[in-house]
Amino acid sequence: MTGDLTYPGGGVRLHVEGPLRKEMRITPSPEQAHYLLHVMRAKAGDMLSLFNGRDGEWRAEIADVTKRSCTLVCRAQSGPQQAVPDLWLVFAPIKKTPTDYLVQKATELGASLLQPVFTRRTIVTRVNRDRMRANAIEAAEQSGRTDVPEIREPLPLEKLLAQWPADRKLLFCDEAGDALPIAKAFAQKRPSPLAEGGEAQRATGEGDCSWAILTGPEGGFDPAERAVIRARDGAIPVTLGKRILRADTAALAALAIFQSLRGDWD
Amino acid sequence: MTGDLTYPGGGVRLHVEGPLRKEMRITPSPEQAHYLLHVMRAKAGDMLSLFNGRDGEWRAEIADVTKRSCTLVCRAQSGPQQAVPDLWLVFAPIKKTPTDYLVQKATELGASLLQPVFTRRTIVTRVNRDRMRANAIEAAEQSGRTDVPEIREPLPLEKLLAQWPADRKLLFCDEAGDALPIAKAFAQKRPSPLAEGGEAQRATGEGDCSWAILTGPEGGFDPAERAVIRARDGAIPVTLGKRILRADTAALAALAIFQSLRGDWD
Repeated sequence: MTGDLTYPGGGVRLHVEGPLRKEMRITPSPEQAHYLLHVMRAKAGDMLSLFNGRDGEWRAEIADVTKRSCTLVCRAQSGPQQAVPDLWLVFAPIKKTPTDYLVQKATELGASLLQPVFTRRTIVTRVNRDRMRANAIEAAEQSGRTDVPEIREPLPLEKLLAQWPADRKLLFCDEAGDALPIAKAFAQKRPSPLAEGGEAQRATGEGDCSWAILTGPEGGFDPAERAVIRARDGAIPVTLGKRILRADTAALAALAIFQSLRGDWD
Repeated sequence: MTGDLTYPGGGVRLHVEGPLRKEMRITPSPEQAHYLLHVMRAKAGDMLSLFNGRDGEWRAEIADVTKRSCTLVCRAQSGPQQAVPDLWLVFAPIKKTPTDYLVQKATELGASLLQPVFTRRTIVTRVNRDRMRANAIEAAEQSGRTDVPEIREPLPLEKLLAQWPADRKLLFCDEAGDALPIAKAFAQKRPSPLAEGGEAQRATGEGDCSWAILTGPEGGFDPAERAVIRARDGAIPVTLGKRILRADTAALAALAIFQSLRGDWD
Protein backbone atom coordinates (compact mmCIF):
# COMPACT_ATOMS: atom_id res chain seq x y z
CA MET A 1 0.00 0.00 0.00
CA THR A 2 1.26 3.45 -0.81
CA GLY A 3 0.35 6.67 0.91
CA ASP A 4 1.58 9.79 2.61
CA LEU A 5 4.90 9.48 4.35
CA THR A 6 4.44 10.62 7.93
CA TYR A 7 6.24 10.49 11.25
CA PRO A 8 4.86 11.41 14.69
CA GLY A 9 5.48 15.11 14.08
CA GLY A 10 3.59 15.28 10.79
CA GLY A 11 4.07 14.61 7.09
CA VAL A 12 7.51 14.14 5.59
CA ARG A 13 8.86 17.32 4.00
CA LEU A 14 12.20 17.74 2.26
CA HIS A 15 14.11 20.83 1.25
CA VAL A 16 15.61 20.75 -2.26
CA GLU A 17 17.88 23.25 -3.97
CA GLY A 18 16.51 23.28 -7.51
CA PRO A 19 13.27 24.70 -8.91
CA LEU A 20 9.90 23.03 -8.29
CA ARG A 21 7.48 22.84 -11.21
CA LYS A 22 4.76 20.48 -12.31
CA GLU A 23 6.05 17.06 -13.43
CA MET A 24 9.63 18.07 -12.70
CA ARG A 25 11.77 15.06 -11.71
CA ILE A 26 14.16 15.58 -8.85
CA THR A 27 17.00 13.37 -7.68
CA PRO A 28 17.26 13.52 -3.89
CA SER A 29 20.69 13.77 -2.30
CA PRO A 30 22.22 10.47 -1.15
CA GLU A 31 21.34 11.39 2.45
CA GLN A 32 17.74 12.16 1.50
CA ALA A 33 17.47 8.91 -0.48
CA HIS A 34 18.80 7.00 2.53
CA TYR A 35 16.31 8.72 4.81
CA LEU A 36 13.38 8.03 2.49
CA LEU A 37 14.21 4.45 1.55
CA HIS A 38 15.78 3.07 4.71
CA VAL A 39 14.47 5.22 7.58
CA MET A 40 10.97 5.95 6.28
CA ARG A 41 10.84 2.74 4.14
CA ALA A 42 9.24 4.66 1.28
CA LYS A 43 7.91 2.76 -1.72
CA ALA A 44 7.18 3.86 -5.27
CA GLY A 45 3.92 5.78 -5.25
CA ASP A 46 4.37 7.21 -1.73
CA MET A 47 3.83 10.94 -1.44
CA LEU A 48 5.79 13.61 0.40
CA SER A 49 6.18 17.40 0.34
CA LEU A 50 9.01 19.49 -1.08
CA PHE A 51 10.06 23.13 -0.77
CA ASN A 52 13.03 25.16 -1.94
CA GLY A 53 12.57 28.59 -0.35
CA ARG A 54 11.08 30.14 -3.51
CA ASP A 55 8.35 28.06 -5.13
CA GLY A 56 6.01 27.28 -2.26
CA GLU A 57 5.23 23.73 -1.12
CA TRP A 58 4.75 20.88 -3.58
CA ARG A 59 3.41 17.34 -3.35
CA ALA A 60 5.76 14.87 -4.94
CA GLU A 61 5.56 11.16 -5.67
CA ILE A 62 8.35 8.69 -5.15
CA ALA A 63 9.32 6.81 -8.34
CA ASP A 64 12.16 4.78 -9.86
CA VAL A 65 12.98 3.13 -6.54
CA THR A 66 16.18 1.07 -6.46
CA LYS A 67 18.10 -0.12 -3.43
CA ARG A 68 19.98 3.16 -3.08
CA SER A 69 18.12 5.81 -5.05
CA CYS A 70 14.79 7.12 -6.16
CA THR A 71 13.26 10.00 -8.07
CA LEU A 72 10.80 12.58 -6.73
CA VAL A 73 8.17 13.67 -9.25
CA CYS A 74 6.48 17.03 -8.57
CA ARG A 75 2.74 16.51 -8.88
CA ALA A 76 1.03 19.69 -7.69
CA GLN A 77 1.70 22.80 -5.65
CA SER A 78 0.09 22.29 -2.25
CA GLY A 79 0.81 25.64 -0.64
CA PRO A 80 2.17 29.12 -1.30
CA GLN A 81 5.62 30.39 -0.49
CA GLN A 82 5.27 31.74 3.06
CA ALA A 83 7.10 34.72 4.46
CA VAL A 84 8.59 34.76 7.94
CA PRO A 85 8.90 38.08 9.80
CA ASP A 86 12.04 40.04 8.91
CA LEU A 87 13.86 39.10 12.10
CA TRP A 88 17.57 38.43 12.34
CA LEU A 89 19.21 36.60 15.18
CA VAL A 90 22.72 37.93 15.84
CA PHE A 91 24.47 35.71 18.37
CA ALA A 92 27.91 35.04 19.76
CA PRO A 93 28.72 31.44 18.81
CA ILE A 94 28.77 28.96 21.67
CA LYS A 95 29.87 25.35 21.92
CA LYS A 96 28.87 22.81 19.30
CA THR A 97 25.86 21.19 20.93
CA PRO A 98 24.22 24.39 22.20
CA THR A 99 24.82 25.96 18.77
CA ASP A 100 23.12 22.99 17.06
CA TYR A 101 20.21 23.45 19.39
CA LEU A 102 20.09 27.21 18.94
CA VAL A 103 20.01 26.94 15.15
CA GLN A 104 17.28 24.32 15.28
CA LYS A 105 15.10 26.30 17.69
CA ALA A 106 15.68 29.67 15.98
CA THR A 107 14.52 28.10 12.72
CA GLU A 108 11.37 26.71 14.33
CA LEU A 109 10.72 30.07 15.98
CA GLY A 110 10.86 31.78 12.59
CA ALA A 111 14.13 33.74 12.48
CA SER A 112 14.81 34.89 8.92
CA LEU A 113 18.59 35.07 9.16
CA LEU A 114 21.29 33.90 11.57
CA GLN A 115 24.39 36.04 11.97
CA PRO A 116 27.19 34.72 14.19
CA VAL A 117 29.20 37.53 15.77
CA PHE A 118 32.55 37.36 17.54
CA THR A 119 32.80 39.46 20.70
CA ARG A 120 35.65 39.95 23.16
CA ARG A 121 34.42 37.27 25.51
CA THR A 122 33.47 34.80 22.80
CA ILE A 123 35.46 31.64 23.49
CA VAL A 124 34.59 29.77 20.30
CA THR A 125 36.86 30.88 17.46
CA ARG A 126 35.41 28.95 14.52
CA VAL A 127 31.91 28.43 13.20
CA ASN A 128 30.86 25.46 11.09
CA ARG A 129 28.43 27.06 8.67
CA ASP A 130 27.75 23.80 6.82
CA ARG A 131 26.68 22.20 10.06
CA MET A 132 24.53 25.21 10.95
CA ARG A 133 22.91 25.07 7.53
CA ALA A 134 22.20 21.34 7.84
CA ASN A 135 20.55 21.91 11.23
CA ALA A 136 18.51 24.80 9.84
CA ILE A 137 17.32 22.70 6.89
CA GLU A 138 16.26 19.83 9.12
CA ALA A 139 14.36 22.19 11.43
CA ALA A 140 12.71 23.94 8.46
CA GLU A 141 11.56 20.57 7.13
CA GLN A 142 10.00 19.61 10.45
CA SER A 143 8.50 22.98 11.28
CA GLY A 144 6.54 23.44 8.07
CA ARG A 145 8.54 26.46 6.91
CA THR A 146 8.85 26.90 3.15
CA ASP A 147 12.23 28.59 3.49
CA VAL A 148 15.47 28.06 5.35
CA PRO A 149 16.99 30.93 7.32
CA GLU A 150 20.09 32.37 5.72
CA ILE A 151 23.27 31.58 7.65
CA ARG A 152 25.73 34.45 7.36
CA GLU A 153 29.52 34.36 7.63
CA PRO A 154 30.57 35.28 11.17
CA LEU A 155 31.76 38.86 11.70
CA PRO A 156 33.55 40.66 14.52
CA LEU A 157 31.16 42.88 16.47
CA GLU A 158 32.81 46.16 15.37
CA LYS A 159 32.53 45.23 11.72
CA LEU A 160 28.94 44.13 12.11
CA LEU A 161 27.99 47.41 13.78
CA ALA A 162 29.92 49.45 11.20
CA GLN A 163 27.83 48.00 8.38
CA TRP A 164 24.56 47.77 10.30
CA PRO A 165 21.53 48.74 8.17
CA ALA A 166 20.13 52.09 9.30
CA ASP A 167 16.53 50.91 9.17
CA ARG A 168 16.95 47.72 11.22
CA LYS A 169 16.27 47.95 14.94
CA LEU A 170 18.68 46.08 17.17
CA LEU A 171 17.11 44.49 20.21
CA PHE A 172 20.11 44.23 22.49
CA CYS A 173 19.68 41.56 25.18
CA ASP A 174 21.66 43.25 27.91
CA GLU A 175 22.29 42.19 31.48
CA ALA A 176 22.11 45.69 32.87
CA GLY A 177 19.42 46.66 35.31
CA ASP A 178 18.55 49.93 33.59
CA ALA A 179 17.40 48.33 30.34
CA LEU A 180 13.73 47.96 29.46
CA PRO A 181 11.91 44.66 30.16
CA ILE A 182 11.62 43.05 26.75
CA ALA A 183 7.82 43.01 26.58
CA LYS A 184 7.73 46.76 27.23
CA ALA A 185 10.00 47.39 24.26
CA PHE A 186 7.43 45.71 22.01
CA ALA A 187 4.22 46.66 23.71
CA GLN A 188 4.54 50.38 23.13
CA LYS A 189 3.37 51.62 19.80
CA ARG A 190 3.36 55.34 20.62
CA PRO A 191 5.60 57.39 22.91
CA SER A 192 4.39 56.92 26.46
CA PRO A 193 5.18 58.71 29.73
CA LEU A 194 8.13 56.34 30.04
CA ALA A 195 9.53 57.72 26.81
CA GLU A 196 11.04 60.69 28.60
CA GLY A 197 13.44 58.25 30.23
CA GLY A 198 15.10 57.58 26.91
CA GLU A 199 14.95 53.84 26.26
CA ALA A 200 11.20 53.63 25.80
CA GLN A 201 11.20 56.29 23.12
CA ARG A 202 13.73 54.39 21.11
CA ALA A 203 11.54 51.33 21.55
CA THR A 204 8.69 52.92 19.70
CA GLY A 205 9.11 54.33 16.22
CA GLU A 206 6.77 54.76 13.29
CA GLY A 207 4.97 51.51 12.63
CA ASP A 208 6.68 48.18 12.08
CA CYS A 209 10.13 47.73 10.61
CA SER A 210 12.98 45.28 10.40
CA TRP A 211 14.35 43.84 13.62
CA ALA A 212 17.32 41.94 14.93
CA ILE A 213 17.92 40.29 18.28
CA LEU A 214 21.49 40.48 19.61
CA THR A 215 22.66 38.06 22.31
CA GLY A 216 26.12 37.71 23.79
CA PRO A 217 28.41 34.89 24.81
CA GLU A 218 28.67 33.22 28.22
CA GLY A 219 29.95 36.03 30.38
CA GLY A 220 28.15 38.68 28.34
CA PHE A 221 29.44 41.69 26.47
CA ASP A 222 32.28 43.68 27.97
CA PRO A 223 31.58 47.26 29.16
CA ALA A 224 33.13 48.91 26.08
CA GLU A 225 31.07 46.72 23.75
CA ARG A 226 27.93 47.50 25.68
CA ALA A 227 28.56 51.23 25.41
CA VAL A 228 29.16 51.03 21.65
CA ILE A 229 26.04 48.94 21.05
CA ARG A 230 23.87 51.19 23.21
CA ALA A 231 25.12 54.29 21.44
CA ARG A 232 23.80 53.11 18.08
CA ASP A 233 20.64 54.59 16.62
CA GLY A 234 17.97 51.92 16.65
CA ALA A 235 19.55 49.91 19.46
CA ILE A 236 17.08 49.01 22.20
CA PRO A 237 18.65 47.51 25.32
CA VAL A 238 16.27 45.04 26.95
CA THR A 239 16.40 42.68 29.90
CA LEU A 240 15.12 39.11 30.17
CA GLY A 241 14.47 39.04 33.89
CA LYS A 242 16.74 38.68 36.88
CA ARG A 243 17.85 35.10 36.49
CA ILE A 244 21.02 34.43 34.50
CA LEU A 245 20.11 32.79 31.19
CA ARG A 246 22.55 30.78 29.13
CA ALA A 247 23.34 32.33 25.78
CA ASP A 248 21.07 29.98 23.85
CA THR A 249 18.19 30.34 26.33
CA ALA A 250 18.31 34.13 26.05
CA ALA A 251 18.20 33.98 22.25
CA LEU A 252 15.25 31.58 22.18
CA ALA A 253 13.31 33.49 24.81
CA ALA A 254 13.77 36.75 22.90
CA LEU A 255 12.72 35.14 19.61
CA ALA A 256 9.57 33.64 21.15
CA ILE A 257 8.60 36.91 22.81
CA PHE A 258 9.21 38.82 19.58
CA GLN A 259 7.02 36.44 17.57
CA SER A 260 4.23 36.61 20.08
CA LEU A 261 4.21 40.41 20.41
CA ARG A 262 5.52 41.74 17.10
CA GLY A 263 5.86 38.77 14.79
CA ASP A 264 3.37 36.44 13.14
CA TRP A 265 1.97 34.54 16.11
CA ASP A 266 -1.48 36.06 15.91
CA MET B 1 46.14 33.61 46.16
CA THR B 2 42.59 32.94 47.25
CA GLY B 3 39.48 34.61 46.00
CA ASP B 4 36.03 34.18 44.55
CA LEU B 5 35.53 31.07 42.48
CA THR B 6 34.17 32.15 39.12
CA TYR B 7 33.64 30.74 35.64
CA PRO B 8 32.70 32.67 32.47
CA GLY B 9 29.01 32.68 33.43
CA GLY B 10 29.53 34.17 36.89
CA GLY B 11 30.42 33.14 40.42
CA VAL B 12 30.35 29.52 41.54
CA ARG B 13 27.14 28.60 43.35
CA LEU B 14 26.25 25.22 44.80
CA HIS B 15 22.96 23.79 45.97
CA VAL B 16 23.08 21.91 49.28
CA GLU B 17 20.35 19.95 51.03
CA GLY B 18 20.91 20.90 54.67
CA PRO B 19 20.27 24.16 56.52
CA LEU B 20 22.49 27.22 56.05
CA ARG B 21 23.42 29.22 59.14
CA LYS B 22 26.35 31.33 60.23
CA GLU B 23 29.55 29.31 60.81
CA MET B 24 27.83 26.07 59.86
CA ARG B 25 30.26 23.56 58.36
CA ILE B 26 29.02 21.64 55.34
CA THR B 27 30.52 18.59 53.66
CA PRO B 28 29.98 18.80 49.91
CA SER B 29 28.92 15.66 48.05
CA PRO B 30 31.75 13.71 46.38
CA GLU B 31 30.68 15.15 43.00
CA GLN B 32 30.70 18.70 44.38
CA ALA B 33 34.12 18.14 45.99
CA HIS B 34 35.45 16.83 42.69
CA TYR B 35 34.04 19.84 40.85
CA LEU B 36 35.47 22.32 43.36
CA LEU B 37 38.90 20.76 43.81
CA HIS B 38 39.64 19.31 40.36
CA VAL B 39 37.55 21.31 37.89
CA MET B 40 37.62 24.72 39.59
CA ARG B 41 40.97 24.01 41.36
CA ALA B 42 39.70 25.60 44.55
CA LYS B 43 42.08 26.22 47.43
CA ALA B 44 41.48 26.73 51.13
CA GLY B 45 40.23 30.28 51.63
CA ASP B 46 38.42 30.50 48.28
CA MET B 47 34.84 31.74 48.47
CA LEU B 48 31.69 30.52 46.77
CA SER B 49 27.91 30.81 47.22
CA LEU B 50 25.47 28.27 48.60
CA PHE B 51 21.68 27.94 48.59
CA ASN B 52 19.24 25.28 49.71
CA GLY B 53 15.83 26.53 48.57
CA ARG B 54 14.90 27.91 52.01
CA ASP B 55 17.60 30.01 53.65
CA GLY B 56 18.56 32.48 50.91
CA GLU B 57 22.05 32.72 49.48
CA TRP B 58 25.17 32.38 51.63
CA ARG B 59 28.83 33.08 51.13
CA ALA B 60 30.96 30.16 52.19
CA GLU B 61 34.68 29.58 52.52
CA ILE B 62 36.52 26.47 51.45
CA ALA B 63 38.46 24.83 54.29
CA ASP B 64 40.03 21.52 55.30
CA VAL B 65 41.19 20.78 51.75
CA THR B 66 42.58 17.30 51.14
CA LYS B 67 43.10 15.55 47.83
CA ARG B 68 39.49 14.35 47.69
CA SER B 69 37.44 16.43 50.09
CA CYS B 70 36.91 19.79 51.66
CA THR B 71 34.56 21.60 54.02
CA LEU B 72 32.40 24.62 53.23
CA VAL B 73 32.09 27.10 56.08
CA CYS B 74 29.07 29.43 55.96
CA ARG B 75 30.32 32.96 56.58
CA ALA B 76 27.42 35.35 55.91
CA GLN B 77 24.08 35.49 54.18
CA SER B 78 24.56 37.36 50.90
CA GLY B 79 21.01 37.44 49.63
CA PRO B 80 17.40 36.68 50.57
CA GLN B 81 15.43 33.62 49.58
CA GLN B 82 13.82 34.62 46.27
CA ALA B 83 10.44 33.51 45.04
CA VAL B 84 9.78 32.47 41.45
CA PRO B 85 6.31 32.98 39.98
CA ASP B 86 3.88 30.16 40.79
CA LEU B 87 4.15 28.59 37.34
CA TRP B 88 4.07 24.86 36.69
CA LEU B 89 5.29 23.26 33.50
CA VAL B 90 3.25 20.15 32.68
CA PHE B 91 4.83 18.34 29.75
CA ALA B 92 4.71 15.00 27.97
CA PRO B 93 8.16 13.46 28.40
CA ILE B 94 10.29 13.30 25.29
CA LYS B 95 13.58 11.60 24.51
CA LYS B 96 16.52 11.83 26.90
CA THR B 97 18.53 14.68 25.39
CA PRO B 98 15.58 16.99 24.68
CA THR B 99 14.26 16.30 28.19
CA ASP B 100 17.65 17.22 29.69
CA TYR B 101 17.52 20.41 27.71
CA LEU B 102 13.92 21.15 28.61
CA VAL B 103 14.55 20.75 32.34
CA GLN B 104 17.63 22.96 32.18
CA LYS B 105 15.87 25.72 30.24
CA ALA B 106 12.64 25.57 32.24
CA THR B 107 14.71 26.04 35.40
CA GLU B 108 16.52 29.05 33.96
CA LEU B 109 13.21 30.48 32.79
CA GLY B 110 11.83 30.26 36.31
CA ALA B 111 9.30 27.41 36.33
CA SER B 112 8.38 26.54 39.92
CA LEU B 113 7.47 22.89 39.34
CA LEU B 114 7.87 20.32 36.55
CA GLN B 115 5.14 17.72 36.12
CA PRO B 116 5.68 15.01 33.49
CA VAL B 117 2.40 13.73 32.07
CA PHE B 118 1.75 10.64 29.97
CA THR B 119 -0.64 11.15 27.06
CA ARG B 120 -1.91 8.72 24.42
CA ARG B 121 0.72 9.72 21.90
CA THR B 122 3.58 9.89 24.38
CA ILE B 123 6.22 7.46 23.14
CA VAL B 124 8.52 7.61 26.16
CA THR B 125 7.26 5.27 28.88
CA ARG B 126 9.71 6.00 31.71
CA VAL B 127 11.01 9.17 33.29
CA ASN B 128 14.31 9.41 35.12
CA ARG B 129 13.45 11.80 37.93
CA ASP B 130 16.93 11.66 39.46
CA ARG B 131 18.40 12.79 36.18
CA MET B 132 15.80 15.54 35.86
CA ARG B 133 16.54 16.70 39.38
CA ALA B 134 20.30 16.76 38.71
CA ASN B 135 19.73 18.86 35.59
CA ALA B 136 17.44 21.21 37.49
CA ILE B 137 19.99 21.65 40.29
CA GLU B 138 22.78 22.44 37.84
CA ALA B 139 20.62 24.97 36.03
CA ALA B 140 19.51 26.57 39.31
CA GLU B 141 23.14 26.91 40.36
CA GLN B 142 24.08 28.65 37.12
CA SER B 143 21.00 30.82 36.81
CA GLY B 144 21.21 32.46 40.23
CA ARG B 145 18.00 30.89 41.55
CA THR B 146 17.87 30.27 45.27
CA ASP B 147 15.55 27.30 44.81
CA VAL B 148 15.26 24.24 42.60
CA PRO B 149 11.98 23.52 40.83
CA GLU B 150 10.13 20.55 42.28
CA ILE B 151 10.11 17.52 39.97
CA ARG B 152 6.87 15.60 40.36
CA GLU B 153 6.20 11.92 39.71
CA PRO B 154 4.77 11.46 36.22
CA LEU B 155 1.01 11.00 35.99
CA PRO B 156 -1.37 9.89 33.25
CA LEU B 157 -3.27 12.85 31.81
CA GLU B 158 -6.68 11.71 33.13
CA LYS B 159 -5.37 11.39 36.65
CA LEU B 160 -3.64 14.75 36.48
CA LEU B 161 -6.82 16.46 35.32
CA ALA B 162 -8.94 14.65 37.92
CA GLN B 163 -6.85 16.11 40.73
CA TRP B 164 -6.18 19.48 39.11
CA PRO B 165 -6.35 22.36 41.62
CA ALA B 166 -9.47 24.45 41.02
CA ASP B 167 -7.61 27.76 41.36
CA ARG B 168 -4.78 27.01 38.94
CA LYS B 169 -5.23 28.16 35.34
CA LEU B 170 -4.08 25.72 32.68
CA LEU B 171 -2.51 27.32 29.65
CA PHE B 172 -3.04 24.61 27.08
CA CYS B 173 -0.60 24.86 24.14
CA ASP B 174 -2.90 23.54 21.45
CA GLU B 175 -2.31 23.18 17.75
CA ALA B 176 -5.84 24.12 16.80
CA GLY B 177 -6.53 27.21 14.76
CA ASP B 178 -9.37 28.45 16.92
CA ALA B 179 -7.27 28.90 20.06
CA LEU B 180 -6.13 32.32 21.22
CA PRO B 181 -2.63 33.59 20.32
CA ILE B 182 -0.68 33.18 23.53
CA ALA B 183 0.11 36.86 24.06
CA LYS B 184 -3.60 37.71 23.87
CA ALA B 185 -4.36 35.26 26.67
CA PHE B 186 -2.02 37.20 28.94
CA ALA B 187 -2.52 40.72 27.71
CA GLN B 188 -6.16 40.97 28.69
CA LYS B 189 -6.83 41.98 32.24
CA ARG B 190 -10.51 42.71 31.87
CA PRO B 191 -13.18 41.15 29.64
CA SER B 192 -12.84 42.67 26.18
CA PRO B 193 -15.09 42.63 23.11
CA LEU B 194 -13.38 39.35 22.21
CA ALA B 195 -14.65 37.85 25.44
CA GLU B 196 -18.01 37.14 23.90
CA GLY B 197 -16.25 34.58 21.72
CA GLY B 198 -15.57 32.42 24.73
CA GLU B 199 -11.82 31.83 24.97
CA ALA B 200 -10.88 35.40 25.77
CA GLN B 201 -13.21 35.53 28.74
CA ARG B 202 -11.60 32.48 30.21
CA ALA B 203 -8.25 34.17 29.65
CA THR B 204 -9.10 37.01 31.96
CA GLY B 205 -10.25 36.40 35.51
CA GLU B 206 -9.93 38.38 38.68
CA GLY B 207 -6.35 39.52 39.13
CA ASP B 208 -3.36 37.21 39.13
CA CYS B 209 -3.42 33.60 40.21
CA SER B 210 -1.55 30.35 39.84
CA TRP B 211 -0.73 29.12 36.36
CA ALA B 212 0.44 26.04 34.55
CA ILE B 213 1.63 25.55 30.98
CA LEU B 214 0.64 22.24 29.36
CA THR B 215 2.51 20.98 26.30
CA GLY B 216 2.04 17.70 24.46
CA PRO B 217 4.28 15.08 22.91
CA GLU B 218 5.52 14.93 19.32
CA GLY B 219 2.33 14.43 17.38
CA GLY B 220 0.29 16.43 19.88
CA PHE B 221 -2.71 15.50 21.95
CA ASP B 222 -5.36 13.25 20.42
CA PRO B 223 -8.82 14.73 19.75
CA ALA B 224 -10.43 13.14 22.81
CA GLU B 225 -7.70 14.47 25.07
CA ARG B 226 -8.02 17.92 23.55
CA ALA B 227 -11.75 17.95 24.20
CA VAL B 228 -11.32 16.89 27.83
CA ILE B 229 -8.64 19.50 28.48
CA ARG B 230 -10.62 22.27 26.82
CA ALA B 231 -13.73 21.41 28.80
CA ARG B 232 -11.99 22.10 32.12
CA ASP B 233 -12.70 25.29 34.03
CA GLY B 234 -9.59 27.42 33.95
CA ALA B 235 -8.18 25.83 30.79
CA ILE B 236 -7.10 28.39 28.20
CA PRO B 237 -6.24 26.94 24.79
CA VAL B 238 -3.53 29.03 23.13
CA THR B 239 -1.52 28.81 19.92
CA LEU B 240 2.17 29.45 19.36
CA GLY B 241 2.00 30.51 15.73
CA LYS B 242 1.65 28.56 12.52
CA ARG B 243 4.97 26.78 12.39
CA ILE B 244 5.19 23.34 13.99
CA LEU B 245 7.29 23.55 17.14
CA ARG B 246 9.00 20.58 18.73
CA ALA B 247 7.64 19.69 22.13
CA ASP B 248 10.56 21.26 23.98
CA THR B 249 10.52 24.43 21.86
CA ALA B 250 6.83 24.96 22.56
CA ALA B 251 7.35 24.60 26.31
CA LEU B 252 10.26 27.03 26.38
CA ALA B 253 8.52 29.58 24.20
CA ALA B 254 5.43 29.50 26.41
CA LEU B 255 7.52 29.86 29.58
CA ALA B 256 9.44 32.84 28.20
CA ILE B 257 6.28 34.57 27.03
CA PHE B 258 4.59 33.95 30.38
CA GLN B 259 7.53 35.42 32.29
CA SER B 260 7.68 38.48 30.10
CA LEU B 261 3.93 39.21 30.22
CA ARG B 262 2.69 37.78 33.53
CA GLY B 263 5.76 36.67 35.43
CA ASP B 264 8.66 38.48 37.01
CA TRP B 265 10.51 39.86 34.00
CA ASP B 266 9.70 43.47 34.70
